[in-house]
Amino acid sequence: MEAQQGAMSLPYRTVIVGIGLLGGSLGMAMRRRKAQVVGFDIRSEVVGRAIARGAIDSGGTDPAIVSSADLVILATPLDQLAQVAADLAGLFRPGCLITDVGSVKAPIVSKIEGLLPRTVRYVGGHPMFGTSAQGIEAADGSLVAGATFVLTPTGRSDAAAVEELRQWAASLEMRPHCLSPQEHDNQVASLSHLPYLIASSLVASVDDVQAAGPAFQEMTRVAMSPPALWRSILKENRAAISASLQRFEAELDRLWALEGDSLEQALDHLQVKRLGMFPQSKR
Amino acid sequence: MEAQQGAMSLPYRTVIVGIGLLGGSLGMAMRRRKAQVVGFDIRSEVVGRAIARGAIDSGGTDPAIVSSADLVILATPLDQLAQVAADLAGLFRPGCLITDVGSVKAPIVSKIEGLLPRTVRYVGGHPMFGTSAQGIEAADGSLVAGATFVLTPTGRSDAAAVEELRQWAASLEMRPHCLSPQEHDNQVASLSHLPYLIASSLVASVDDVQAAGPAFQEMTRVAMSPPALWRSILKENRAAISASLQRFEAELDRLWALEGDSLEQALDHLQVKRLGMFPQSKR
Repeated sequence: MEAQQGAMSLPYRTVIVGIGLLGGSLGMAMRRRKAQVVGFDIRSEVVGRAIARGAIDSGGTDPAIVSSADLVILATPLDQLAQVAADLAGLFRPGCLITDVGSVKAPIVSKIEGLLPRTVRYVGGHPMFGTSAQGIEAADGSLVAGATFVLTPTGRSDAAAVEELRQWAASLEMRPHCLSPQEHDNQVASLSHLPYLIASSLVASVDDVQAAGPAFQEMTRVAMSPPALWRSILKENRAAISASLQRFEAELDRLWALEGDSLEQALDHLQVKRLGMFPQSKR
Repeated sequence: MEAQQGAMSLPYRTVIVGIGLLGGSLGMAMRRRKAQVVGFDIRSEVVGRAIARGAIDSGGTDPAIVSSADLVILATPLDQLAQVAADLAGLFRPGCLITDVGSVKAPIVSKIEGLLPRTVRYVGGHPMFGTSAQGIEAADGSLVAGATFVLTPTGRSDAAAVEELRQWAASLEMRPHCLSPQEHDNQVASLSHLPYLIASSLVASVDDVQAAGPAFQEMTRVAMSPPALWRSILKENRAAISASLQRFEAELDRLWALEGDSLEQALDHLQVKRLGMFPQSKR
């Protein structure tokens, strides 16, 4: 399949499906690289705002618009991705490269792979940027550069498509990183989903913040990101988050049980560990 | 006692005992306000560096230096505060205003009140600023303005002394805030001590951070602050932190048990609650 259908040269003709914060920001970043970007959204006012804000060159509300694309980015809310892929499945051009931006991958990738025709080349993706705001008005092309872009190929993925998607991400100065869908979900459970739950629980467990220092504000900031998105994430990634939660609570209880020299040594060790995680940052 | 001993006019003659990050930064901020600041430290090289860095006007290693002070700021590490107060108790000028910078208050205030002569006027304090670094080299006068300064008066405190200390904090553009020692300890347990334990436990429970977004880095930053300090804090404030930990784990388990609409409503509610906590911040 690779040789005949995989040969595409930049700039692709790209269609972004769902032009919110993620789709709009990616569109802005691509257009700065002179790519031609078309937007599809079911709301005509969103298409209009996306053109006005410079996120897309043109767009519309007719699904047939995806037929012309070399690259399709499915950028709807997480809980609509599979349905949108199903609705559009018959319209994609053969050889078309398709990705998505869902922040949970195993269940989504499995569903989308099951419903797309074998003539198209799908590789799951997760551009890891965002803000507490949502929608095209919050889109910002400068969020893209420097963000991690996780690709989640499976045994069914076209190797050339994976490489093309990696190059696309790199061309936008994202940092491409391949993980299996389940490995991605396990990692983000610990690195993102559980931390969100923790931040929200910290807010829940405190009433008076008059004596709050900067750490509490910093540690609860992520609780301001959109509840509707988190509702979907916490549902779709439940098993992995549950495992992360158990690991975290065990570490918290273990640390709290330590005293004196053992405690200080454990804290020293964790400081060295974190320094290794983020060597560039001073703190 | 107030009228005769309490009458002091700015600028005080101030002696800072222990010239590290906190003492040095306060010294710098006071000197910018034209106050005369003397430093006492048991290490002569620290005194020299403090003068060179502009944290104090003069200083020395002889405890008798505190005899001349109108205001004494005890700024040693937490686990040395009570001993230092005991060592200096006979040297303070009658009417002298004394405070400290300890980040746990109830046990410290109780010890210090018990060992100082009734001729001096002690009010516990907690200037809430800091960085991951320690010592005079990390001192920075610009950390002071905007920081919360908690005063922890008790039934034994001189009312005029409380007011003078409040005015001193306000003159350095700190935000003074009165709490009882135990109330302070309960609040910082939830707002600072438990968040530190959580950040360290998050670091402990994760091994691969290649897929980490900004939230994980932000939420674990406080794990980089000094383990020796935290060893003392976690020891001195054990009961209050234990209560905060139980409340936090109960909220975490409660939130994790929710699904669908109930989950989204709870997350919405917590978002509104946090917005009320930090109304100035966009996120």
